Amino acid sequence: MNTFTVPRGTSDILPDATPLWEALEFLARKICKSYGYREIRTPIFEDVNLFKRSLGATTDIVNKQLLELVSSQREKPAESGSNGDRIFLNEYALRPEGTAAVVRSYLENSLDKIEPLSKLFYIGPMFRGERPQKGRLRQFHQIGVEAIGPNSSSPLLDAEVITLAMHLLKELGVKEPQLKINSLGSKEDKARISTWLRGELAKQKERLCPECQARFERNVFRVLDCKNESCKKVVASLVKDLPLSTPSQEYFAQVQAALNSVKVPFEVSPHLVRGLDYYTHTVFEITAAGELGSQDAVGAGGRYNGLVHELGGNPKVSYGAIGFALGIERILLAIGESSVPLSGVAVYIMAMKEEYQPLAFLVMQLLRKSGISADMSFIGGSMKSQMGKADKAGARFSLIIGEDEVKNNSIAVKNMETSTQESVALGGIVEHLIKVLSS
Amino acid sequence: MNTFTVPRGTSDILPDATPLWEALEFLARKICKSYGYREIRTPIFEDVNLFKRSLGATTDIVNKQLLELVSSQREKPAESGSNGDRIFLNEYALRPEGTAAVVRSYLENSLDKIEPLSKLFYIGPMFRGERPQKGRLRQFHQIGVEAIGPNSSSPLLDAEVITLAMHLLKELGVKEPQLKINSLGSKEDKARISTWLRGELAKQKERLCPECQARFERNVFRVLDCKNESCKKVVASLVKDLPLSTPSQEYFAQVQAALNSVKVPFEVSPHLVRGLDYYTHTVFEITAAGELGSQDAVGAGGRYNGLVHELGGNPKVSYGAIGFALGIERILLAIGESSVPLSGVAVYIMAMKEEYQPLAFLVMQLLRKSGISADMSFIGGSMKSQMGKADKAGARFSLIIGEDEVKNNSIAVKNMETSTQESVALGGIVEHLIKVLSS
Repeated sequence: MNTFTVPRGTSDILPDATPLWEALEFLARKICKSYGYREIRTPIFEDVNLFKRSLGATTDIVNKQLLELVSSQREKPAESGSNGDRIFLNEYALRPEGTAAVVRSYLENSLDKIEPLSKLFYIGPMFRGERPQKGRLRQFHQIGVEAIGPNSSSPLLDAEVITLAMHLLKELGVKEPQLKINSLGSKEDKARISTWLRGELAKQKERLCPECQARFERNVFRVLDCKNESCKKVVASLVKDLPLSTPSQEYFAQVQAALNSVKVPFEVSPHLVRGLDYYTHTVFEITAAGELGSQDAVGAGGRYNGLVHELGGNPKVSYGAIGFALGIERILLAIGESSVPLSGVAVYIMAMKEEYQPLAFLVMQLLRKSGISADMSFIGGSMKSQMGKADKAGARFSLIIGEDEVKNNSIAVKNMETSTQESVALGGIVEHLIKVLSS
Repeated sequence: MNTFTVPRGTSDILPDATPLWEALEFLARKICKSYGYREIRTPIFEDVNLFKRSLGATTDIVNKQLLELVSSQREKPAESGSNGDRIFLNEYALRPEGTAAVVRSYLENSLDKIEPLSKLFYIGPMFRGERPQKGRLRQFHQIGVEAIGPNSSSPLLDAEVITLAMHLLKELGVKEPQLKINSLGSKEDKARISTWLRGELAKQKERLCPECQARFERNVFRVLDCKNESCKKVVASLVKDLPLSTPSQEYFAQVQAALNSVKVPFEVSPHLVRGLDYYTHTVFEITAAGELGSQDAVGAGGRYNGLVHELGGNPKVSYGAIGFALGIERILLAIGESSVPLSGVAVYIMAMKEEYQPLAFLVMQLLRKSGISADMSFIGGSMKSQMGKADKAGARFSLIIGEDEVKNNSIAVKNMETSTQESVALGGIVEHLIKVLSS
């Protein structure tokens, strides 16, 4: 009999680890809400063309890493006249990131008609068909925010989004997250700088790595943050600051002033870029020390005003949009924890004979109805073995139902911390436990 | 420019609806924990053979409704020597239900070595490539529990699991959930009853619907709960009670006694079955009135001791396993709610001139750092328009920063409920709001 294993690049979150995830998600929701962001949940899969349009049809994510869906129904049944099932053939893909779906939902549901600025957050799994390695998974989880609205580009909003990312990371336990920011300028700036960069880099093209030579035409900005040593040298000698227009410089200066005013430390990194065409103005990346190794980014984001039009937004409206995503698995690596102690139940009930188990079950259920968490051993066993289970369950009190207790219509209540024990009338057991548990 | 839409059979959960989902999940977690169940999270997709083995290779779910994964990488790159990407070709599928993955994880992680009885719950999306209709979605969400352990079959545990399902539904707002229970008996009982049923039904086979005639050999039990009128008549005349062995009858009687002891009302329905081979003993289904129409089941479950061996459990161990799943979308239909009012922020800050916005941003950030939720209009606008946004955001207080305030180093604080307004020194604004918000 062969057994089954969890798919490569994914993992089970076991009961010892889920309380940490739950606490982290609870805290993230609370903080996002305190900044006026509201949660949105989009489906696990989307039209594959949404990702082709948003990420670019020639990107690695789209060409190599999307996980597309096919129906297990291989042939159309003869009696079916419709092609309702055909739409699953290579037209849907698991979402590799959250932004495209949020913008799709923003437009489809006309959220701009409901509010002038939609401040949205999401928490959930993302998927890439990558070769698994540390920090790179096939199913991973992100906390992300997007702020989208007509005419909503504002340096203060950029500063808010960045501040929220840093606030989240600190509250979630990441020590000393390092923030790097940069501005790519306006769309016009980017076009001008691309031409200039291509001209300059062309003179030393043979010193660039093969990947940079390949993306030279398509997206010359990516050369700026290539990790290859030779590319780094070329870039360092060439680019001190990106030659932004005056309005773009002023916008970026205001972002920095706002970050300074609320004491968020940052470093301006002129070589920091986001690869996709639609990024303009502010981009940022946050790294952390810890067990992350070379994959030390715990989050990144930027302004992507252009994407809303790309996905079908009204061409007459000038949309602003900025967001980020934080990687939950990377945060856990950075804080060096993956599980917290068992929270357990308040009360554990022990039946000393099998025939007392129905009474134990009844008492347990009365406690639960009163909001007191409780458990019992359904398997039974000796006093010692059941006491061991009560300990393991983290119970504050154990209730013992033995021969004497049944005879006297009582229950022995043991305080697991002090090891003191008292006898309580069966009819008053719920009241008694409410009292001792709240004291 | 074409726009994108949410995939058929899935839906966005928009910001007005997420608070209800969040509240529902919070309550479900709390109740499951109070019964001693702990959360487990398995991946969104699993080895397709896990579902073939657990659900049966000939079932509709496996043959028609699984959504399998393929990599977007269509050809192997010439330089790659490994076949690491090939494993995505038709070998993984989105999970159509939660039980198989939980048992897989239980065995893979040897949870039986950690605790004698693993009481687990999960909350999350499930997927079926069905033709979408009301109450049947391609992505839907379930709350489920599984109690698994060696020698853990106990009528009280069956009663606990059923009680928990009913407790959850009631606390989540389902009015008068209706519980039907039945026992399919032991594995031996089932084999004997199958032979008997086949013999009896063979005499009237032509009165059965085509589907029942087809599944007659494979899984004759499914004929018992066929909705076809003619099948119903045949079954009604034939089966009053399933002819269980004496030990199976006693087991079922104890389940009923335990449910009676904790006042969980139920109806014994001898025609209620669960279609899969590995179900034995207790099975149950819970329906609700409301807008559910013919899809009125909000949850179902049963004992599936046989599955643990089927998925590779140690053949020398006698595993017990029982669980259920509740459908969140169906619960929402049953309670007739899909959204709750905006929770909003506590404080809304208004800058009366654009040049005061950086000060508004700073005050907002000071409030947030003190744990007070706050927002501002990044877009600006008139006093009236910003006051409208403060109202819409549900703010209890609005802070107004105008010419007088900046001159006097103060902020006007307006109580949005009473419409009273007072001037507070800028340096004391956080303390002031902490005080008035907590009173």
